[in-house]
Amino acid sequence: MTRTALASVACSIARTVDVLGDAWSWLIVRDLTAGLSRFEELQDDLSLSRKVLTQRLGELIEHGIVERTAYQQHPERYDYRLTPAGTELTPVLVAMATWGDRWHAPDGPPIRFRHTTCSPGAVTLACEDCGTPVGRDELSIEPGPGGRISLGTKRIGPRIAGRD
Amino acid sequence: MTRTALASVACSIARTVDVLGDAWSWLIVRDLTAGLSRFEELQDDLSLSRKVLTQRLGELIEHGIVERTAYQQHPERYDYRLTPAGTELTPVLVAMATWGDRWHAPDGPPIRFRHTTCSPGAVTLACEDCGTPVGRDELSIEPGPGGRISLGTKRIGPRIAGRD
Repeated sequence: MTRTALASVACSIARTVDVLGDAWSWLIVRDLTAGLSRFEELQDDLSLSRKVLTQRLGELIEHGIVERTAYQQHPERYDYRLTPAGTELTPVLVAMATWGDRWHAPDGPPIRFRHTTCSPGAVTLACEDCGTPVGRDELSIEPGPGGRISLGTKRIGPRIAGRD
Repeated sequence: MTRTALASVACSIARTVDVLGDAWSWLIVRDLTAGLSRFEELQDDLSLSRKVLTQRLGELIEHGIVERTAYQQHPERYDYRLTPAGTELTPVLVAMATWGDRWHAPDGPPIRFRHTTCSPGAVTLACEDCGTPVGRDELSIEPGPGGRISLGTKRIGPRIAGRD
């Protein structure tokens, strides 16, 4: 299966990594989440070439994650900001940071995410119903209305549906 | 900055995408999370070449996310399972699935994650303290003990520390 086929997999994880399957894309979203907005700031923060940064920003704009607005006309200069879809990637970044903090942070967490109205409450994955943190052993995976057993779900599809 | 330099960035998101910066790596972790364990099952589910699958599994083993156990000696055959570090990637997968469900699931969610002891409670990002769901506008980013302003955090570092 080529990368281009990933979007057609009936799996929301596959569709997410189809759009954001690259380390740089996640780090650009990270930087925009932290408040950077100018091409030069992003380039400087990530030490990326203009070419790669232009390409990745173009993909993120194409996929509706980033939008750009001209803040200067001659020459044209742009501000890059997250769209609502881009802003909703924050829980993924928080979950990634939590994992990195736990397994790859010998000097302790580089940053902390906090619930502003409830400081110093850290954020975690929790049950929408009862509010308690949910570990892997308390999490079940069930079929949803958009599920299909086809390319990219050939083996996990039947297993999740309980037919394997 | 090359991919190899990402591990040295004082950022738990950069360190996570350094280890899992590839769409296939996430999908292999997805499949192991859903209960697949054999090379042939993974290959069949993802329609990946033996070469690419071997390479990605090797990287995941090297990074302590997957472990393999021989279940047959002649010829040698292996079971692939998530280590504790691999199992703790589940919140990242859930957050990715939630985003894909919201922005790229025209037929509805392909699967649903449920809190088993509180069915049908879906999972979300919540405050560890008060248990309420946390949106981007209620989330603050603060410096942690492992923070450094250097390669890959040159611009966001000062911003998070409130010095920019």
